[in-house]
Amino acid sequence: MALAQLNNPTCSKTQLHSSQLSFLSRTLPKQYHCTFAPLHRTQHGRITCSVAPNQVKAPAVQSQDPKSKPDCYGVFCLTYDLKAEEETKSWKKLINIAVSGAAGMISNHLLFKLASGEVFGPNQPIALKLLGSERSFQALEGVAMELEDSLFPLLREVVISIDPYEVFQDAEWALLIGAKPRGPGVERAALLDINGQIFAEQGKALNAVASRNVKVIVVGNPCNTNALICLKNAPNIPAKNFHALTRLDENRAKCQLALKAGVFYDKVSNMTIWGNHSTTQVPDFLNARIDGLPVKEVIKDQKWLEEEFTEKVQKRGGVLIQKWGRSSAASTSVSIVDAIRSLITPTPEGDWFSTGVYTAGNPYGIAEDIVFSMPCRSKANGDYELVKDVIFDDYLRQKLAKTEAELLAEKKCVAHLTGEGIAVCDLPGDTMLPGEM
Amino acid sequence: MALAQLNNPTCSKTQLHSSQLSFLSRTLPKQYHCTFAPLHRTQHGRITCSVAPNQVKAPAVQSQDPKSKPDCYGVFCLTYDLKAEEETKSWKKLINIAVSGAAGMISNHLLFKLASGEVFGPNQPIALKLLGSERSFQALEGVAMELEDSLFPLLREVVISIDPYEVFQDAEWALLIGAKPRGPGVERAALLDINGQIFAEQGKALNAVASRNVKVIVVGNPCNTNALICLKNAPNIPAKNFHALTRLDENRAKCQLALKAGVFYDKVSNMTIWGNHSTTQVPDFLNARIDGLPVKEVIKDQKWLEEEFTEKVQKRGGVLIQKWGRSSAASTSVSIVDAIRSLITPTPEGDWFSTGVYTAGNPYGIAEDIVFSMPCRSKANGDYELVKDVIFDDYLRQKLAKTEAELLAEKKCVAHLTGEGIAVCDLPGDTMLPGEM
Repeated sequence: MALAQLNNPTCSKTQLHSSQLSFLSRTLPKQYHCTFAPLHRTQHGRITCSVAPNQVKAPAVQSQDPKSKPDCYGVFCLTYDLKAEEETKSWKKLINIAVSGAAGMISNHLLFKLASGEVFGPNQPIALKLLGSERSFQALEGVAMELEDSLFPLLREVVISIDPYEVFQDAEWALLIGAKPRGPGVERAALLDINGQIFAEQGKALNAVASRNVKVIVVGNPCNTNALICLKNAPNIPAKNFHALTRLDENRAKCQLALKAGVFYDKVSNMTIWGNHSTTQVPDFLNARIDGLPVKEVIKDQKWLEEEFTEKVQKRGGVLIQKWGRSSAASTSVSIVDAIRSLITPTPEGDWFSTGVYTAGNPYGIAEDIVFSMPCRSKANGDYELVKDVIFDDYLRQKLAKTEAELLAEKKCVAHLTGEGIAVCDLPGDTMLPGEM
Repeated sequence: MALAQLNNPTCSKTQLHSSQLSFLSRTLPKQYHCTFAPLHRTQHGRITCSVAPNQVKAPAVQSQDPKSKPDCYGVFCLTYDLKAEEETKSWKKLINIAVSGAAGMISNHLLFKLASGEVFGPNQPIALKLLGSERSFQALEGVAMELEDSLFPLLREVVISIDPYEVFQDAEWALLIGAKPRGPGVERAALLDINGQIFAEQGKALNAVASRNVKVIVVGNPCNTNALICLKNAPNIPAKNFHALTRLDENRAKCQLALKAGVFYDKVSNMTIWGNHSTTQVPDFLNARIDGLPVKEVIKDQKWLEEEFTEKVQKRGGVLIQKWGRSSAASTSVSIVDAIRSLITPTPEGDWFSTGVYTAGNPYGIAEDIVFSMPCRSKANGDYELVKDVIFDDYLRQKLAKTEAELLAEKKCVAHLTGEGIAVCDLPGDTMLPGEM
């Protein structure tokens, strides 16, 4: 490769692996101003230049140091002075959003929502840092191309990489979606170990390079214990900042109560999912409300509430797979958006939302030092506080004990990944949700 | 089936085919107030009731006549008095949006965008009427379930059906995405005929039951000629209201010019795609502008503009399929949103957008009576006018003649579907876009 070829504002790569890009960006002299865009009809494995300087009238765009954006993609490799332009000078500072499993179906919905501005608002420019695997790297390029073709004004950077240390650099949000799905015959303990290792590595990377106040939402399953592993490997980031996604369960629970009561789902509030994102999860109909009234005053069928309701929520994912032939990527991504919005907008008066968070100092008597879904409120600062005015009865206590026991058993099973000694796996029956199998 | 079972506010169906639902809704006495929601654990093929009246405290929701919503889905079968509630009384009147191919991947992105409010705004309640095929009906139920689980406040009705006369009833927008993909060895003429028949039927259905001012966007390929067939079969709807989607081509063309010029894509304006959504399409670099300047003043590489640029735009879909393993559903759905927004928001001063429209009375000298992509402006009323101040040179004229000839040949090939006599198929070389093959 002749370095002379690189001496221009926009260069292109084809069939180059991320590690090659990484190598190039680290080894090129700083004065070679090159970005890596796909040029689909050039030679394989070669850097070629698509623009010679004299052909281009210099536009009002700042030049860019490739070392600061190692695996940026195409048009997103440009650096902008947003303050210099009329339309963008009122915009907030760019935020870095890292997404793992970025070539998967959930991300394929989520990334376009993030880029469109519907999550963080119309004045918030976005950098998307996409983490994939070696196997998925070409698909990741495809995702970046589709993001280019979507012309989202707020999307100002896209980085694709297989290196979490690159992707998590200065991340203010880390949406950890990627995890190995459970293959046939794989024991649950084995899955906990395989995925746990991924989340231990990602925790270390977050600890090393992410913003000190990064908010982490773990979606990859088993998400509660993955979140625990992740936070244990990131001691310099507040444990409070790690979430396990139970928002889809909450949304499904609201919908099922609405269906049963014959009301629109916007009438259901105060819905808590307690515990693990598994079949031991507890959708709480004791504290939930319909049109402001306790659920039990509206739905008088106690047997349905105790026996069918919870099962309906748990089994929803499995039914969807049967109907639709694949898991529920679209509604999962909607629930991730809901989870983010709940942390950056004030919670409506008297209501709350559910998220799996670290249990240290919880007022409910739940075991400390696990990640457990609980009712929360936010003041729109990215932070949350646990709701105090919830009630318990024997039924709810008994259900909470079961999901708590499961999470404690999962914790023992991944002790080798949380720095707490030798793992002992004595898991209760198989409680993975159908969508995760 | 005992009719007594149906005498309650919410009923459920499992494994019932749309035609059965249709039959039920037509044959049940009006006083049987029943909606069709999925109950996943009941007997097959049987209507059962999930709520007995005495178990439910009547919520503030109006009752519903099943005849008016034959195949409504689950929680979306409720009827609301939006004017009666504080949060919704300022909302606009509900609009009906029909989507064909609703179980496919493009729709799987698009429906959630429509339902979220990002297309029609936060005060516009939405009814989604989903058209699928017998084969895809279960998947359609899955889509409806995911829409339920997403709790979109603005989404107030979902209907799933395989009958276009049901789905297009009072539709104000019809987004026609469904079409048979081209199998191996299928001649282009055969594809024109197979898909043409679908669009002839849908045109007749629109003519019979849709809003008299319905806006129709044809996405299913070959979209220009499908749109022509559709409008010819809908003589009572203005031909002007039918569009063939070329917006993804426009977006891709903008991105490629931006990449070449080393500017962000928001600097590229006045981008016309002329003609057919095929490889004969003409991305117009003569009239397009970068940062307000003619493209040729910014990108001085005329050879690249004439030879590589057009090919890059055309081949983008094929490259994406190679990278990503499937066609570009996400960016296609973004471009459909762009196409709708361009008709309901005022076009920025001095700019325009491209859409394939009926050529009657065009000022460019393009043959009348075909659907041809041209530059348009809108006053935000759903309507558009053609842009007059565009320039032509010999290169552009020659390209326009080629794509025009193709569309005229396609038109002759579907004469049996447009009521214009006997079809004569003498198509030029194969010009389907890679994404469509």
